[in-house]
Amino acid sequence: MTLTPDDPRAPVADVDLLVLGGIVVTTDARRTILNEGALAVRDGQITAVGPRADVAGRYRAPRVIEARGGLLLPGLIDGHTHLPMTLFRGLADDLPLRAWLEEHIWPAEQRTLNPDAARWGTRLAAAELIRSGVTTCCDMYFYEDDVAEAVEEAGLRAILSQGFIDGPDTEQRLASAELFLKRWQGHPRITPAVGPHAPYTVGPDSYRRLHALAERFDVPLVTHLAETKGEGHDVAARYGRTPVRHLAQLGVLDARLIAAHCVWVDAEEVGLLAASRAGVVHCPRSNLKLASGVAPVPDLLAAGARVGLGTDGAASNNELDLFAEVQMAALIHKGVRLDPLAVPAAAALEMATSGGARALKLDSRVGSLEVGKRADVVVLDLEEDNLVPLYDPVSHLAYAAASADVRTVLIDGRIVLEDRELRTLDEAEVRRQVRALSVAIGSRWGRAGP
Amino acid sequence: MTLTPDDPRAPVADVDLLVLGGIVVTTDARRTILNEGALAVRDGQITAVGPRADVAGRYRAPRVIEARGGLLLPGLIDGHTHLPMTLFRGLADDLPLRAWLEEHIWPAEQRTLNPDAARWGTRLAAAELIRSGVTTCCDMYFYEDDVAEAVEEAGLRAILSQGFIDGPDTEQRLASAELFLKRWQGHPRITPAVGPHAPYTVGPDSYRRLHALAERFDVPLVTHLAETKGEGHDVAARYGRTPVRHLAQLGVLDARLIAAHCVWVDAEEVGLLAASRAGVVHCPRSNLKLASGVAPVPDLLAAGARVGLGTDGAASNNELDLFAEVQMAALIHKGVRLDPLAVPAAAALEMATSGGARALKLDSRVGSLEVGKRADVVVLDLEEDNLVPLYDPVSHLAYAAASADVRTVLIDGRIVLEDRELRTLDEAEVRRQVRALSVAIGSRWGRAGP
Repeated sequence: MTLTPDDPRAPVADVDLLVLGGIVVTTDARRTILNEGALAVRDGQITAVGPRADVAGRYRAPRVIEARGGLLLPGLIDGHTHLPMTLFRGLADDLPLRAWLEEHIWPAEQRTLNPDAARWGTRLAAAELIRSGVTTCCDMYFYEDDVAEAVEEAGLRAILSQGFIDGPDTEQRLASAELFLKRWQGHPRITPAVGPHAPYTVGPDSYRRLHALAERFDVPLVTHLAETKGEGHDVAARYGRTPVRHLAQLGVLDARLIAAHCVWVDAEEVGLLAASRAGVVHCPRSNLKLASGVAPVPDLLAAGARVGLGTDGAASNNELDLFAEVQMAALIHKGVRLDPLAVPAAAALEMATSGGARALKLDSRVGSLEVGKRADVVVLDLEEDNLVPLYDPVSHLAYAAASADVRTVLIDGRIVLEDRELRTLDEAEVRRQVRALSVAIGSRWGRAGP
Repeated sequence: MTLTPDDPRAPVADVDLLVLGGIVVTTDARRTILNEGALAVRDGQITAVGPRADVAGRYRAPRVIEARGGLLLPGLIDGHTHLPMTLFRGLADDLPLRAWLEEHIWPAEQRTLNPDAARWGTRLAAAELIRSGVTTCCDMYFYEDDVAEAVEEAGLRAILSQGFIDGPDTEQRLASAELFLKRWQGHPRITPAVGPHAPYTVGPDSYRRLHALAERFDVPLVTHLAETKGEGHDVAARYGRTPVRHLAQLGVLDARLIAAHCVWVDAEEVGLLAASRAGVVHCPRSNLKLASGVAPVPDLLAAGARVGLGTDGAASNNELDLFAEVQMAALIHKGVRLDPLAVPAAAALEMATSGGARALKLDSRVGSLEVGKRADVVVLDLEEDNLVPLYDPVSHLAYAAASADVRTVLIDGRIVLEDRELRTLDEAEVRRQVRALSVAIGSRWGRAGP
């Protein structure tokens, strides 16, 4: 029989919150799935995961989320973002990468970015991410102190880095990168990092110095790597090596590295990335939209590389929807390789959860529903046409679920989305402010009249 | 100044319904977009499209849909479906095509299909399609009379065909195909068609006889064509020709043909398809999931072929979401061809609207918001995080919109979805019935207990 809190024989423990499922997809190492499961949460940490009847019987909480008939999964991890770039969503599309960046995005950034704009763009991104079940992101952008404050306000968990590009003010930027680490180190949800932009915008000396800084503060080093064929040519022309070998040569290719994209890597580089224990963040939709190519993710996974998934910024996607990335990661490699077994459903889901956490070096804290991990939890509504019937929950998460199916989200034990209501931000105000900014950026549609 | 219905000088006309936008993306031949537009609808037909103030001034209606701040677009056209296959959504994935079909899908169909199951599966599919803005589909399956009645009940517009496969009962099936045409000819929203399954399951004689039948009733001929590399080998081994050339040789490759997939077609066949004025239905997500490959859609479009978009059945996708197909069609070809200009946003949107209508030979009736067309209209909510800000509505439709953003849908002037409430079906009951059927089909998750 089941012991309930009312049963005098039950050793009932007090916790802060119970989440009663529903199917629980833990994404633990054994891929445990509970048919009727539940979680207990205390001090923002998962203190129990198990059959619903057991958890409901052993724990008592002032707050209970009833998710019977729903599906619980770990919060999703978006391994590559440029949060404020929601400001430029759809500003320019269908252009060659250089023209897109140099004629549209960079001028718009020059013209409009400031601390206030960065905050509003970040708030919009955070709202969109939370609504799609993302609880952790890994960001690189300008005005990152402002990004961090908006992230804190939204309640997200994040690795945040100041985007670093070499220039006449390199010394000042290095000092600023250090200040950023000092300011945010020790924050419970925000991990500061260093963020050299890419091998074609950051020289060897700055990479080495930022790496030394990352070692000193024991934080990650976030960078773009081997995104386009053109980058490969540029880096080879300058350094006589491919981008991955270039970073290896500089001593930067190690477990501290979080490298976005890795599209243009050969078989040997796949091995180098795996052996280094670097995180690789696959951004399939962005790579397609910018015509960068298709990363060799099946090979990276087979080699044991730590592969996560990312949306990239909203200017190159144009939605921040990690379910769409999971689906793309599950679909694209099958079709391109003519192999129906390339990146199965479970592998795609793991890139967004446990594998994504490993890629960001956060796997001791998040990425699965296990005792001792922080309580980053998504409750999915299964009372949706697109999720009926249900033969295999992992199949649904990889091929059928949409971000609109997300009902409730916890981050660090805190309810940030509840029955589709965002608790941390005033979304209507966020949309108003971003729309107002967009008029200055260049919207033809933000005003009345054509 | 604007003339309003209250203005005595205005020649006010009575209509049934006004839809007041909002941005109106017409997808007409000039790609007209109105910033503040509106539609008037009488007898299920669009009688006016124009600036909001003009339409509101010139027409009076007992029913007004207020969509200020929203976006109006033509109902989307899903050019390839197997509606009842929602029953098998997620039953089997990540398998080689043959094993998937022969060991899982076909046995499940054998075991469970009957008129009642076909109806419940169709109702679920219709609900899902309408919620994602689809107003027309082109279907091929078994029990198509039952499919048709469920489609009629849902209020969808459709081309429907009995799936035909050669066997010992070929004569009976041909007679049944003819009966189906007789029964449904003249229906205002349902166009019956013949549906030979594919060149590897239907012999030359049956293709010719079904084509003659289609000519006699002046209806389309729906088929699968050149979906997989294996099909190409099979057809070549049997007939000494590729699938497209085989149909050309049989006299079936003409303007009556609606051919799903066309993945494995060479440059000459691209020309044959274009010259024939056949409809080609691109199903990018299904082609990826089943590892069939990537259809040469940029070449087909450049050659002037009539290309639409399809979801395929829910067993090979696994969601019926045409926005996801539009996004995939806009993204995949860029990435695979390393060409950021391959299938721009407008081209992807047109495959789901005006181009899709041409592919299905329904372009005189649907596919754009123009005077004289039937009133198949989608109202999208722009008060969504993923659609803010708004620089270019066509960009949003191709890269950022989600089916959950669909607020209201008209088909033939009838409101079938209103403020996200489905008016034609009891969705909760549909989900209950499909769940009940899924237990017999083989669900591990439909019942309590693992």
